[in-house]
Amino acid sequence: MKKVDLNSDLGEGFGKFKLGMDEEILDEITSVNIACGWHAGDPLIMENMVKLAKDRCVAVGAHPGYPDLMGFGRRNMNVTPEEVKAYVKYQIGALKAFVHSEGVELQHVKPHGAMYNMAVNDYSLALGIAQGIKEVDSQLILLGLAGSELIRAGKECGLKVASEVFADRAYTKDGKLVPRNVEGAVLYDKETVIKRVIRMIKEGKVQSIDGNDIDIEAESICVHGDNPEAVEFVSEIKKALKNEGIKITSLDKVVGIYE
Amino acid sequence: MKKVDLNSDLGEGFGKFKLGMDEEILDEITSVNIACGWHAGDPLIMENMVKLAKDRCVAVGAHPGYPDLMGFGRRNMNVTPEEVKAYVKYQIGALKAFVHSEGVELQHVKPHGAMYNMAVNDYSLALGIAQGIKEVDSQLILLGLAGSELIRAGKECGLKVASEVFADRAYTKDGKLVPRNVEGAVLYDKETVIKRVIRMIKEGKVQSIDGNDIDIEAESICVHGDNPEAVEFVSEIKKALKNEGIKITSLDKVVGIYE
Amino acid sequence: MKKVDLNSDLGEGFGKFKLGMDEEILDEITSVNIACGWHAGDPLIMENMVKLAKDRCVAVGAHPGYPDLMGFGRRNMNVTPEEVKAYVKYQIGALKAFVHSEGVELQHVKPHGAMYNMAVNDYSLALGIAQGIKEVDSQLILLGLAGSELIRAGKECGLKVASEVFADRAYTKDGKLVPRNVEGAVLYDKETVIKRVIRMIKEGKVQSIDGNDIDIEAESICVHGDNPEAVEFVSEIKKALKNEGIKITSLDKVVGIYE
Amino acid sequence: MKKVDLNSDLGEGFGKFKLGMDEEILDEITSVNIACGWHAGDPLIMENMVKLAKDRCVAVGAHPGYPDLMGFGRRNMNVTPEEVKAYVKYQIGALKAFVHSEGVELQHVKPHGAMYNMAVNDYSLALGIAQGIKEVDSQLILLGLAGSELIRAGKECGLKVASEVFADRAYTKDGKLVPRNVEGAVLYDKETVIKRVIRMIKEGKVQSIDGNDIDIEAESICVHGDNPEAVEFVSEIKKALKNEGIKITSLDKVVGIYE
Repeated sequence: MKKVDLNSDLGEGFGKFKLGMDEEILDEITSVNIACGWHAGDPLIMENMVKLAKDRCVAVGAHPGYPDLMGFGRRNMNVTPEEVKAYVKYQIGALKAFVHSEGVELQHVKPHGAMYNMAVNDYSLALGIAQGIKEVDSQLILLGLAGSELIRAGKECGLKVASEVFADRAYTKDGKLVPRNVEGAVLYDKETVIKRVIRMIKEGKVQSIDGNDIDIEAESICVHGDNPEAVEFVSEIKKALKNEGIKITSLDKVVGIYE
Repeated sequence: MKKVDLNSDLGEGFGKFKLGMDEEILDEITSVNIACGWHAGDPLIMENMVKLAKDRCVAVGAHPGYPDLMGFGRRNMNVTPEEVKAYVKYQIGALKAFVHSEGVELQHVKPHGAMYNMAVNDYSLALGIAQGIKEVDSQLILLGLAGSELIRAGKECGLKVASEVFADRAYTKDGKLVPRNVEGAVLYDKETVIKRVIRMIKEGKVQSIDGNDIDIEAESICVHGDNPEAVEFVSEIKKALKNEGIKITSLDKVVGIYE
Repeated sequence: MKKVDLNSDLGEGFGKFKLGMDEEILDEITSVNIACGWHAGDPLIMENMVKLAKDRCVAVGAHPGYPDLMGFGRRNMNVTPEEVKAYVKYQIGALKAFVHSEGVELQHVKPHGAMYNMAVNDYSLALGIAQGIKEVDSQLILLGLAGSELIRAGKECGLKVASEVFADRAYTKDGKLVPRNVEGAVLYDKETVIKRVIRMIKEGKVQSIDGNDIDIEAESICVHGDNPEAVEFVSEIKKALKNEGIKITSLDKVVGIYE
Repeated sequence: MKKVDLNSDLGEGFGKFKLGMDEEILDEITSVNIACGWHAGDPLIMENMVKLAKDRCVAVGAHPGYPDLMGFGRRNMNVTPEEVKAYVKYQIGALKAFVHSEGVELQHVKPHGAMYNMAVNDYSLALGIAQGIKEVDSQLILLGLAGSELIRAGKECGLKVASEVFADRAYTKDGKLVPRNVEGAVLYDKETVIKRVIRMIKEGKVQSIDGNDIDIEAESICVHGDNPEAVEFVSEIKKALKNEGIKITSLDKVVGIYE
């Protein structure tokens, strides 16, 4: 039986600022990536998100980002592998304090924004991230873009890795995401999106933007809770996956830590 | 045999900025309080300080502060007990990541600056701090001002606590520090300072600024490494303590976790 | 003919974070207080707010706050008068860059949150704020709570001052705001609120929470655009004021700089 | 008679952190670049630096940087031209508040670190910077690397520009600085350095790292005050320049605003 995880980036407010429909989307997903106070998030928000996730039995992951609150961690920054390693350790450690005080375990780490994107192609940066994760806790799962250098670096370090796919994004023939500013980068037709994601999971294939079938590993689908329509669409995807006999379950069960 | 710990606040740089003679003073002390990135400190500095402390077998503690880098965490801020609890958890967790990846254990927590000072008299704030520590790790020692509400709150929570004294500061008749802006608040005569600290440890007494003997518990002495003279004076204090047969050892051994 | 200004705090987002209905409330007010990047606001938001205000002929003011983005500038901080003076100058200067590049003039300064509230009773802090404003531009109007030490400090410095009232807040018998955590501090009945504000403007009187009439100077009313109901209520207040023959106009015209 | 300006980056502390020998180097230079609170600097430091510069009749410039205090503004960040324009305006405006309250005028703007370096080759970023300067005050001089896109963008905008040279750095055959991590990038022989800088000013030529003479415009020399030797060397450079009959004077006089 095929299995897949649904993950979402939550807790991305800061102080008085709120973003997205955290509680609504939490009801739909199996793993949550919680911001750790750098690109977004603060201690009170982190504490609250961990409690909400625990209440709903959603597995918790850290979502570390660059020190760029003003740019929401989405701007490339020329940090060294040594710096990113220390940044990742700091942020995972901070989140672990809240996770452990709730009596749960941290499941995974998914880098945020520019850190995630730069690690798709930059192996030495990816290795810094992977080593940071391993040094904090070698049992953590590294969640990264399917086919990326981040996945390769995680394997090289001996970490358990999980491949993430985006249901509504076009892929290049190399299996990378087509940049958002390119025509056709984002898919809007819901039926197409659902068909693509089912094929990714069942066949391990997706059609690239130039029309060729490419291999893709789909262990976790990234979903969003920005607005009511987004949340509603996640519930439609789930229905479709279930109809196809695909089991929706948290990352640790998908990658086979717990069968 | 009487025992005492010598502690110092280190790792208080930020990025390119450096402060104090961290390595020199590390050679003299038995416990180090490492800044956690809020009032000072950053991930690279924290990582490096933990390594330096480990090399010298100096016990490591967290030194969490207020979110006020511009004011070096020294300005009173009206944070709620709930906020301070979350702030303390975040910062301890962040430091733990580096401590654990070096294979050592975190020994204690000493709040910094205004957080430390406000917790001397404000029991509900002190309780927030103590609860934060306990929720992260109930084995951590809380290091606070002798006779303060922070010590009382720590005991109330069931934490192991340790009482800190200042060798070169005057005390009020209630056992609180005389504020720095008051005449006579800081003692400059080295011989007097050394006699006072020996009496604190051996007799549990100190003369207050108005001439009365008061009780004081001296489990750890706060020392500074701001300049070469300060470092040299710590080495003089140590010599004097040894001559009196006082054993200088890390906090966990002073408070009786390890005999 | 009686005149009054309507002011609101806008531009209080940060980076990707947004807060309140800035454009909708801008259509209703005569003076806008723009956040300057410390408690909220960033250069892009500031630039945009100045343009929006200019388009609607709304007079622009600076809204400087404490360096506490995490606490939205609402937590008391123990800054010195010298610090607050420099903080105010920095923030006013930053906003002036955007105001001048749009070819308009900065009209006023209204401190934000804890800075505003602390300056109600703390004269030396208030004087630091007033001096900071004067040193940047002695033509700026200082907008502060009616009857506060801030107004007194502004006059002492030779600044033009303007007294702000809150239509929906209860007042103590000394003319200070009843703290929000006290029962009855906020008035919810719209009719009562509108009657109170009209009386403040026409008679210079308001009934305090303990039932006595007190004197109050009402040159500007603080209004909010947090949600559609708030914006709608501002439009109701305006209608009521006009029915009473009260002219709604920007602060500089109310305080008599331009008649 | 040949003229040249000596500039240095000062006020680069933050809160309790200090950096460099600001006062000593101020005695040697004719123009100062003051950090504006983003990569370094804070309102109190800025205010103090302006006063110190005024006392010594050193012309004041703004030294805006990226929002990266942790990386001291030295890490490339992928900011848009629109963002950099607003960032530059904000920081110039903030410094202007202190400059004007001292009754002096802001002379120039020199971007800091990664912002400066990225603008050497990236014309659209350089144009964002130049436009930001112009929108705040079209009389400001833009100080940038000789031969850079920043100088070109400044001219395009109609700004007065000034070309900066580095006495102790090797140049490529295209007139760019050889990156610091390349062998031979920094020159240590004082005599060579002094000969090179004199030739730059008098002949407008410098020998590139691969041995060819290239054209270079030297209107301002960047000097450092990191330590006593650096300050002493500046005084040696000045002596040598004077012996050659070169007049050392502030930037506005070099570029011919005031003859």
